[in-house]
Amino acid sequence: MSHPASSPPIRVVDVIRRKRDGGELSKAEIEDFVRGATSGEIPDYQLAAWLMATVLKGMNPAESAALTHAMLHSGEVLDLADLPLPKVDKHSTGGVGDKTSLVLAPVAAAGGLAVPMISGRGLGHTGGTLDKLEAIPGFNVNLPTREFRRVLHACGCAMIGQTAEIAPADRKLYALRDVTGTVESPYLICASIMSKKLAEGIDGLVLDVKTGSGAFMKKEEDAAYLAQLMVETGEQMGKKMAAIITDMDQPLGLKIGNSLEVDECLDVLRGSGPEDLRVLCLELSGWMFFLGSVSKTVEEGKQLAEKTIRSGEAMERFRKMVELQGGDPHSMDDPRRLPQARERMEVPSSQSGVVNEIQCEQVGTACVILGGGRERKEDSIDPAVGIVLHKKVGDSVRAGESLCTVLYNSPQRAQRAKDMLESSYQIGEAAPVQKRPLVHRVISGSGRTN
Amino acid sequence: MSHPASSPPIRVVDVIRRKRDGGELSKAEIEDFVRGATSGEIPDYQLAAWLMATVLKGMNPAESAALTHAMLHSGEVLDLADLPLPKVDKHSTGGVGDKTSLVLAPVAAAGGLAVPMISGRGLGHTGGTLDKLEAIPGFNVNLPTREFRRVLHACGCAMIGQTAEIAPADRKLYALRDVTGTVESPYLICASIMSKKLAEGIDGLVLDVKTGSGAFMKKEEDAAYLAQLMVETGEQMGKKMAAIITDMDQPLGLKIGNSLEVDECLDVLRGSGPEDLRVLCLELSGWMFFLGSVSKTVEEGKQLAEKTIRSGEAMERFRKMVELQGGDPHSMDDPRRLPQARERMEVPSSQSGVVNEIQCEQVGTACVILGGGRERKEDSIDPAVGIVLHKKVGDSVRAGESLCTVLYNSPQRAQRAKDMLESSYQIGEAAPVQKRPLVHRVISGSGRTN
Repeated sequence: MSHPASSPPIRVVDVIRRKRDGGELSKAEIEDFVRGATSGEIPDYQLAAWLMATVLKGMNPAESAALTHAMLHSGEVLDLADLPLPKVDKHSTGGVGDKTSLVLAPVAAAGGLAVPMISGRGLGHTGGTLDKLEAIPGFNVNLPTREFRRVLHACGCAMIGQTAEIAPADRKLYALRDVTGTVESPYLICASIMSKKLAEGIDGLVLDVKTGSGAFMKKEEDAAYLAQLMVETGEQMGKKMAAIITDMDQPLGLKIGNSLEVDECLDVLRGSGPEDLRVLCLELSGWMFFLGSVSKTVEEGKQLAEKTIRSGEAMERFRKMVELQGGDPHSMDDPRRLPQARERMEVPSSQSGVVNEIQCEQVGTACVILGGGRERKEDSIDPAVGIVLHKKVGDSVRAGESLCTVLYNSPQRAQRAKDMLESSYQIGEAAPVQKRPLVHRVISGSGRTN
Repeated sequence: MSHPASSPPIRVVDVIRRKRDGGELSKAEIEDFVRGATSGEIPDYQLAAWLMATVLKGMNPAESAALTHAMLHSGEVLDLADLPLPKVDKHSTGGVGDKTSLVLAPVAAAGGLAVPMISGRGLGHTGGTLDKLEAIPGFNVNLPTREFRRVLHACGCAMIGQTAEIAPADRKLYALRDVTGTVESPYLICASIMSKKLAEGIDGLVLDVKTGSGAFMKKEEDAAYLAQLMVETGEQMGKKMAAIITDMDQPLGLKIGNSLEVDECLDVLRGSGPEDLRVLCLELSGWMFFLGSVSKTVEEGKQLAEKTIRSGEAMERFRKMVELQGGDPHSMDDPRRLPQARERMEVPSSQSGVVNEIQCEQVGTACVILGGGRERKEDSIDPAVGIVLHKKVGDSVRAGESLCTVLYNSPQRAQRAKDMLESSYQIGEAAPVQKRPLVHRVISGSGRTN
């Protein structure tokens, strides 16, 4: 530290003022700031002023990397050097029916990677990997580090929640951002995501950056900007990086809801499942294999992924991980052992035509209303409830035919969810003019855009 | 209030986000914000985020007026309707040797105005009216409101410090701005100044907005922007307003230091004193008389001011005020009764030539170093110490001739101050090309710029 220990308050104000005026902060200044935030030495009001200045004035690549680095090293960084496999993970910015992690982890493990996956819970209208895993009876996402390592060594993948030791600076700043209107900054989002992911001790990371009506970044250019930033930041820290901008203008797959999504992932691991989900899982695992140098090309990686599914090896890895993390392995073969909703209700189309649009955020919110997500942080989740789509964008529908089925336990909640789902479908006379691609673009290592 | 009382936290974030995105806040939203700041209901971190967003995104005239209005009404507003005189005050944005208040208050009172002056202490390198008044033995600046009114009725002017009842929202926000890098915003400065000044219950206000190396606003355009904003804000609240942009590129008058400045003001009240100080006092009091409709023109107002000095009436008012506020009236006639420094030291010129520049902020800082101001908030002030200038910009000087005299009580402090004063003088071979005017421009009522 370059300043006398007796005068931190003056220095903090100077750092805030410099960022306010659009100036650049040094690595040491950013480190001091993150250290002071974590220790509580810098009061919340100074952090809040700095966060707002950062949202409005941005950061350059060096500052962004320094922030991520400092937040990463505010806590424990796993050292997996004793595991002689390439370690590669995937992170998604969040969506509706976005369940690929449950497929990717065992596929990647079966193909020769180690996947030390630390995930989050549902946020707003989007689902969370931890909530989905907990739909498997007995599955424990709260493993201590030693146990996490054991599972990872035994089956090549392990899936847990963030521990208190991982990136405490992010926990502090995230809570503050939420109440000070400083969430929406690519630099702060990048540091938040990357500090948590790189704490896993990985060599490479594939980012699934969502765009469309069900994503946090509705506009593709915003998604691409964040993707580019995260790729550059990860590369500066010596990681193999790729970001795939994928579509979230309608839900991914056909099932939304925790137990239902586990079921759909099991379908994919058995070699079936809906086309879009299958294709995205292969694309992302292809990139994971490529970044981990298990395959020479992404295409070859995809083929390897398909092989792990066809051979049953991916399913076997998943079953083993479930068992090692306390889950019921028989539920993998018999989906009726997963939580089941008591009631079901159809949502019929009021007219004949073609589905032109599904307001994706509304579908996610409908699932939250059913109890499949949290309206407030302290809410508990009903793993059984959810929605099964029968019609997606481009599908023809007759008046009275079911658009989707609501699986519920509370009739009042079901009615609210049904109303929301009805209004989320837009039926036109003709097919939509432009079909949105599943993969919008790829921003891969060394800044190359495909 | 337009929102349900149960949901203020969400609403505060929405207000912060709107300002962050450059949007406009309603009068009711700004009122809620100021009320929540004063009561402590809105936590400091949300206030800090909002302050930073305001610094960076600005305010429109309606928002600026609403903020000033809300801050003004966060506390007591004096009602002086029982005093049948026009009430006009002056406010300066602060400078070095800037001592006009001690002349203006008695001159204006002698000419038929009531001057209910609530002032501040020295800030940074600038002096404060309260510190100067306290150099007068016994003078009490902490009068309760009732006593303040009594003095004002008795002699037409009274000079005190801010009471706990005046603009508590400003006290809260000012303390926060100081530590969050959110001081430098014309909108926040305007609301802070105007909420305190308008709490005096005045009809008109003359603003002395300083510009130059000894001012907070070094650039004239920044000073003019703030001046215009304050004039418009005051007019929107029904006040007669004028702002005079005046020079602070070198100290005003020849004396800097609390006791010395009282002495110099007494000279002006006796009809002598340095030219620049005399001229500025006449200019400002001319505008005070004009705004208070005591004179038909500013020029006529200046003549009235000169008359109050020539007749001795202004001096008589000052003596009476000093006596009523507990000060020693004999010190008005015998400056040796004012605090005197024990030692003096000359600052000789190292070369012959013409004074081209005096780094004005450095001169102010030299006075602070001597003990005439506060390096930290809790420091006490030595009223006796200070600096007497013998050479100002444009004056010729011979090598070895004294530039100024340091009056001190601590030799260590004196040496530091001397070094600083030496380096503040720039001596050239020829006179400076352009002489800066004392009055740069006038921004008077209805937005007219002279």
